[in-house]
Amino acid sequence: MALSGNAIIAQSGGPTAVINNSVAGVIETWLDQDITGTIYAGISGIKGILQGHIIDLAAQEKSILAGLRYTPGAGLFSCRYKVSAADQVKLIDICKKLNIRYFFYNGGNDSMDTAHKTYEAAQSAGWEMCVIGIPKTIDNDLPFTDHTPGFGSAAKYLATTVRETGIDLESVSTKNKVTILEAMGRNTGWLTAAGALAKRREDEAPHLLYLPEIPFFKEKFLSDVENVYKQLGYCYVVVSEGLNDGVGNYLAAAKSVDSFGHRQLSGAGEVLKNLVEVKLGIKARCNTLGTAQRSAMHCASLTDAQEAYEVGKAAVEYAIKGHSGLMVSIERISSQPYQSIMGQIPLEKVANIEKKLPLEWINTEGNFVKDDFMRYANPLIEGEVEIPMQNGLPAYVSLDKSRGCIRI
Amino acid sequence: MALSGNAIIAQSGGPTAVINNSVAGVIETWLDQDITGTIYAGISGIKGILQGHIIDLAAQEKSILAGLRYTPGAGLFSCRYKVSAADQVKLIDICKKLNIRYFFYNGGNDSMDTAHKTYEAAQSAGWEMCVIGIPKTIDNDLPFTDHTPGFGSAAKYLATTVRETGIDLESVSTKNKVTILEAMGRNTGWLTAAGALAKRREDEAPHLLYLPEIPFFKEKFLSDVENVYKQLGYCYVVVSEGLNDGVGNYLAAAKSVDSFGHRQLSGAGEVLKNLVEVKLGIKARCNTLGTAQRSAMHCASLTDAQEAYEVGKAAVEYAIKGHSGLMVSIERISSQPYQSIMGQIPLEKVANIEKKLPLEWINTEGNFVKDDFMRYANPLIEGEVEIPMQNGLPAYVSLDKSRGCIRI
Repeated sequence: MALSGNAIIAQSGGPTAVINNSVAGVIETWLDQDITGTIYAGISGIKGILQGHIIDLAAQEKSILAGLRYTPGAGLFSCRYKVSAADQVKLIDICKKLNIRYFFYNGGNDSMDTAHKTYEAAQSAGWEMCVIGIPKTIDNDLPFTDHTPGFGSAAKYLATTVRETGIDLESVSTKNKVTILEAMGRNTGWLTAAGALAKRREDEAPHLLYLPEIPFFKEKFLSDVENVYKQLGYCYVVVSEGLNDGVGNYLAAAKSVDSFGHRQLSGAGEVLKNLVEVKLGIKARCNTLGTAQRSAMHCASLTDAQEAYEVGKAAVEYAIKGHSGLMVSIERISSQPYQSIMGQIPLEKVANIEKKLPLEWINTEGNFVKDDFMRYANPLIEGEVEIPMQNGLPAYVSLDKSRGCIRI
Repeated sequence: MALSGNAIIAQSGGPTAVINNSVAGVIETWLDQDITGTIYAGISGIKGILQGHIIDLAAQEKSILAGLRYTPGAGLFSCRYKVSAADQVKLIDICKKLNIRYFFYNGGNDSMDTAHKTYEAAQSAGWEMCVIGIPKTIDNDLPFTDHTPGFGSAAKYLATTVRETGIDLESVSTKNKVTILEAMGRNTGWLTAAGALAKRREDEAPHLLYLPEIPFFKEKFLSDVENVYKQLGYCYVVVSEGLNDGVGNYLAAAKSVDSFGHRQLSGAGEVLKNLVEVKLGIKARCNTLGTAQRSAMHCASLTDAQEAYEVGKAAVEYAIKGHSGLMVSIERISSQPYQSIMGQIPLEKVANIEKKLPLEWINTEGNFVKDDFMRYANPLIEGEVEIPMQNGLPAYVSLDKSRGCIRI
């Protein structure tokens, strides 16, 4: 029998276009079941919960909650914060005070680590609480899941942009003759590889991809670009922000370190643009979509949005069955036609492991992906999300953080 | 009575998302009228015509011509090329050989200059030929027209991206706390100003805009950013690539010069990102959409796409009435509800003049636009263009340059 009590949901890390679909999946499924407790939101992730920024979602207007399904950004606000041992004790105290028996945490690698620690802290404290991790990340780098919610939409937006700016390059190749698009992805090349989905013909963009999984050498890059340029008169390259030489030296200078000790990178695309201009004497241009990659809901994948919702729904279903200490995963049943079901994986297995692009999906030259990747990624970008428009722009909503505030 | 003979259309300069709507408007209207001549396309603008790259558009498949209405990039391929006196003589010779009596040139400022010179060259040579300029530019900097086709779509894409990445910033403001978006626009701030359309509430992005019309001072910028940051905890800034101090010194280092002698700029956004980090000690991020701004057909404005078509249609209608040496203009009849009609303006008046954002539409602080701009720009981003999709991506078409090639 399910534990009686309240639930809480919070988000952490960088958002995705469809991250709030998971929140909507949690909220709607929670409100649909028999446990009488309410559902809280931790505002700004675990950090907000620790600071007492907790609201009762029942106090929000229905239209706002419904709007989460088409609103990008972290609807419940996010944080990047590594919990200390003292934080863990405090967190369980808060859960006890608010009779929180269901803890849902929506995020990427670091968030699954936080969820796992919360699970352990609850166990140590003897506080019976179901802790479920709800995956999201445009990086697609979580292990033991076919893919992560958020990846498909970022892939669709990136590939759409590659196709559009590729047509632009080809049509005006009398001027800027090399276009470089820098894609997000610190250590894994999933999103960079998604640029390949734009290619229909040999001469169509992109012509070259450079992934963090493959050691990067400037000479090889320049010779690749020159070869394409000689053949076509232009060249379109997608590069990962995390290009490196395979022994820890990043192409872009490390500028700072986040609270998890990760180096913050930027500028690989600009470095390569200048290299092409100086070494090859060919005019180049660098487009850096930046945070648009994780927030372009106007170009989201319907498949991705629906799965993000399903993952949230499954989280509640698992929890009320008494499952805990797990992350919801997506299992692919078939690619053609595409079918997936929800699964689960213990948090202890998933936390802090990064799933890289399989080397066997990368060509021998190390500068493009094989059809195996296309077959994997193509179903994930299918379909479009309908978004209400107002004055020509998407009518995104925002949570009222001042409603339903809880005193601890 | 209309001159009997053939027509030619070519494109020049940077494309817009909807530029090919104008070509479609020309082709369909041409094929619909009584003059028996065919319609040629000059491949890669005036440069291509001079090199004999001319095709008969009648040889293209109908589906390709229809697809121009939703395909970005210069469908007929573009060039940036300043015609010499010798070129002008050669051009008229080619027109005589092919009995070209109608010359349509689709482009921005420089292209209107080329069209004007072609008009004069034809007159000097005694070759009776209607020359009509068809405006396009995301920069919106052509004079004597309420706006230019292409601006509305770029504005819609930019404002959509500001809204999305603004929501992202606000939701994760615990990390990157200042987002800078660099907008295209060498000398005019129309597109940068369009970022303001994203703003619905005081605390919503963007908070600051910096335009090339207003001399830029780093100290003022830093103090503006700091003020917003102190108040909200984050700050979203849209900046023009062409920021300058008002006496010709650009914020971004000049890197090269195009064939019209214009300096090619990039990097104003990166300069400011670093300034914020170093001088204010606040983490910042710079998004540079680059050529996506002029090719994002997936986020085009229906109003803009329809007007781009109408401008092409009007070009043919004026031409067969015997008008020549003019650019088609758009005249606004009313803003609410939005209504426009086509007009015309002599090419000699329009060539090489840039229309700046009116200073009275900019606030006294010089860091935002007033409601007058919103009332002007909002109707131009209304409506969405339906695009056929294939495998999750827009099914854009491309002209077959090898079909219907003409021998001169």
